[in-house]
Amino acid sequence: MNRITAEIITIGDEILYGQILDTNAKWMSEALDEIGVRTIRRTTIGDNEVDILKAFEEAEARVDIVLITGGLGPTKDDLTKPCLAKYFKCDMELDASALDDVIRIFESKGRELTDINRLQAVLPTACQKVTNAVGSAPGMWFHHEGTVFVSMPGVPYEMKMMMTNHIIPKLQDTFKMPVIYHKIIKTIGIGESWLADIIDGWAEGLPENMSLAYLPSLSQVKLRITAVGEVKEELIKEVADQVELVKPLISQYIFGYDQDTIESVIGSRLKEEGLTVSTAESCSGGYLAHMITSVPGSSAYFIGSVVSYHNDIKIGQLGVKMSTLTEHGAVSEQTVKEMASSIRQKFNTNIGLATSGVAGPGGGSKEKPVGTVWIAYSDGENCVARKLQLGTERTLNIQLSAIHCLNLMRQQLNAKTEIAI
Amino acid sequence: MNRITAEIITIGDEILYGQILDTNAKWMSEALDEIGVRTIRRTTIGDNEVDILKAFEEAEARVDIVLITGGLGPTKDDLTKPCLAKYFKCDMELDASALDDVIRIFESKGRELTDINRLQAVLPTACQKVTNAVGSAPGMWFHHEGTVFVSMPGVPYEMKMMMTNHIIPKLQDTFKMPVIYHKIIKTIGIGESWLADIIDGWAEGLPENMSLAYLPSLSQVKLRITAVGEVKEELIKEVADQVELVKPLISQYIFGYDQDTIESVIGSRLKEEGLTVSTAESCSGGYLAHMITSVPGSSAYFIGSVVSYHNDIKIGQLGVKMSTLTEHGAVSEQTVKEMASSIRQKFNTNIGLATSGVAGPGGGSKEKPVGTVWIAYSDGENCVARKLQLGTERTLNIQLSAIHCLNLMRQQLNAKTEIAI
Repeated sequence: MNRITAEIITIGDEILYGQILDTNAKWMSEALDEIGVRTIRRTTIGDNEVDILKAFEEAEARVDIVLITGGLGPTKDDLTKPCLAKYFKCDMELDASALDDVIRIFESKGRELTDINRLQAVLPTACQKVTNAVGSAPGMWFHHEGTVFVSMPGVPYEMKMMMTNHIIPKLQDTFKMPVIYHKIIKTIGIGESWLADIIDGWAEGLPENMSLAYLPSLSQVKLRITAVGEVKEELIKEVADQVELVKPLISQYIFGYDQDTIESVIGSRLKEEGLTVSTAESCSGGYLAHMITSVPGSSAYFIGSVVSYHNDIKIGQLGVKMSTLTEHGAVSEQTVKEMASSIRQKFNTNIGLATSGVAGPGGGSKEKPVGTVWIAYSDGENCVARKLQLGTERTLNIQLSAIHCLNLMRQQLNAKTEIAI
Repeated sequence: MNRITAEIITIGDEILYGQILDTNAKWMSEALDEIGVRTIRRTTIGDNEVDILKAFEEAEARVDIVLITGGLGPTKDDLTKPCLAKYFKCDMELDASALDDVIRIFESKGRELTDINRLQAVLPTACQKVTNAVGSAPGMWFHHEGTVFVSMPGVPYEMKMMMTNHIIPKLQDTFKMPVIYHKIIKTIGIGESWLADIIDGWAEGLPENMSLAYLPSLSQVKLRITAVGEVKEELIKEVADQVELVKPLISQYIFGYDQDTIESVIGSRLKEEGLTVSTAESCSGGYLAHMITSVPGSSAYFIGSVVSYHNDIKIGQLGVKMSTLTEHGAVSEQTVKEMASSIRQKFNTNIGLATSGVAGPGGGSKEKPVGTVWIAYSDGENCVARKLQLGTERTLNIQLSAIHCLNLMRQQLNAKTEIAI
């Protein structure tokens, strides 16, 4: 089956000049990919009639589906609607159903409808209106000689609602698409090339209808298996079989699947086992607590944290021994272990975590250069510390200290389970 | 003077299919905008020879400068280099100087040079090599019948170093550009349309060579004044005069200029005045401490934090009265004020900040729905609390609680200075 192809056109000077980051195009590509549509080009142009019409023409010659965002506001800078009317050689008229939508939106927000707002309901006659449930600019659907053009607002939340509820189902009705199934295996603590070395043989043996992508991010690598076929249930089973094959090879690095994050996985685990955790943070400066508390419902297992930025707090609040700080320094195995044990006892939790390091750019020395970080885990029975040698960028060092500390907890909890079995 | 125009071409399936977010294009547009080059199109295409060559051809017909990123790795998926050789009808040869660069990079990282790495130094003969100081893929500069093509690696850090140190100066040497000067005024605590109402008269009176852009982000609006002319010093003076005119209208909302962030501005202020701060966080869960400690050198004024997620910690560690929690609840003016005063005393700092709220999605009630947040500031003399009614999204509620709390401290410090004067 030939793949259905798409082009995404983003309209707006503010994107073109770099004032805002275009997150819409990524989201739309992903949404299309999910239903088996292959995006073959993305184009960004400014608020300029000539460029917009040219982009429409070029896109129609290239693809089956043209998704357009932006330029739908009610002011004169916003050219998408008149350009679409010109391109499809039709008039613009007040659409009664679109007006109803606009009135409803304004009523729901308790705002008065002005003449300018009313203009939002004036649409090219060649289009089918697409309801915008959360904003005042309606979407537009054109079906022109085999090519579908869809125009949507640039506000990410409005575009996403419209895509999910209307456009994706309508595209699936309009085009015959293959069934696509993705499964993501999430790993942590191993680089892309080392991972590839281990699973190369397995990857080469994947059936013809499956492909593998490596998607690296901060200390993590996602393995995405994509299967193409006709029956979803069969694909799910086929992919599950492949996952079972690769799992034993890299089990120690796998922390989750699909939408899992390291913090959500650990949260579920703690909740299941009825365990609580507290943190004592120096170089991570609150980011470790932030990662843990970014998970909804984390109050069930996260009790609290002491960010001991100043040594006085390490001593006074965490009871780190003065002699430990003098003999070994704040960035040391001894200090970070005392921090983890102390917070566990003080906050009366099952587990205590701690970080201490040189985040940079200042504060480094020959023995402990910027990027030297100690992390620790304590659960009453065991107290384990690890040294990390990170880079020179402060932001990355803060984030990586926290991520590695969560991973240390994951490993320790796994080790416990293994011993128990 | 005609504006010099540019197109940015990003090459890579992983961007096209939405696996990674293209932050390079935004950065490059901004960098071009800074030197007065107008980006008129951005194009993203996959790892596919036909599409790449077509995109080159289209871009050359449109613009003066074509910036290309991605597709420069040493594997067979990476097609940018062979496509450039084909497009400029030249051979590929080992470039001695590029090889020196590659060898140096590998030596500095203590890694062995393989034959595949050596291929990085094979370049189209029509190009001038551009040194990559931090990675193994060299950049390439082609000057073809008035149009400049620049190919750079897709790794953001490498691209940025190359743009800043080599490409931007080289473009300024090659093309005659107008002088552009930007000044950004940063405001907090007022929406875009309210701001526009206040400064509309001023904005309409701006001289012809200046323009104004509103760039809204999380609870902040940046006002960017752009001036075009021929002599930088004159522009700087003209813009400074305009800033002086608008300042009195919105002074209470202005927290900084250009690269300032709310956390960096507050940091500098605390350092100057020799003040220290500590935080007691409930709903912000460590994010407030994280914002403060994201600033290099923050250990000079940030002493530490207690994240009191569980009420036991509010009572046991922060000394919030049991009766306060019972009578008013954790999310209340009384509790948040006790938290701010208590952390200030306990951590012996000049200022104590506190947050307590319902971040969501759970935990809301009729009286205190999700998004109800109390923030407080205490300095020994004054203890001030504010109530925020935020939205329903957990992540935003966490971030906004912290940002508003920092803004509260900024306002209180300003009020103090005014009284002192």
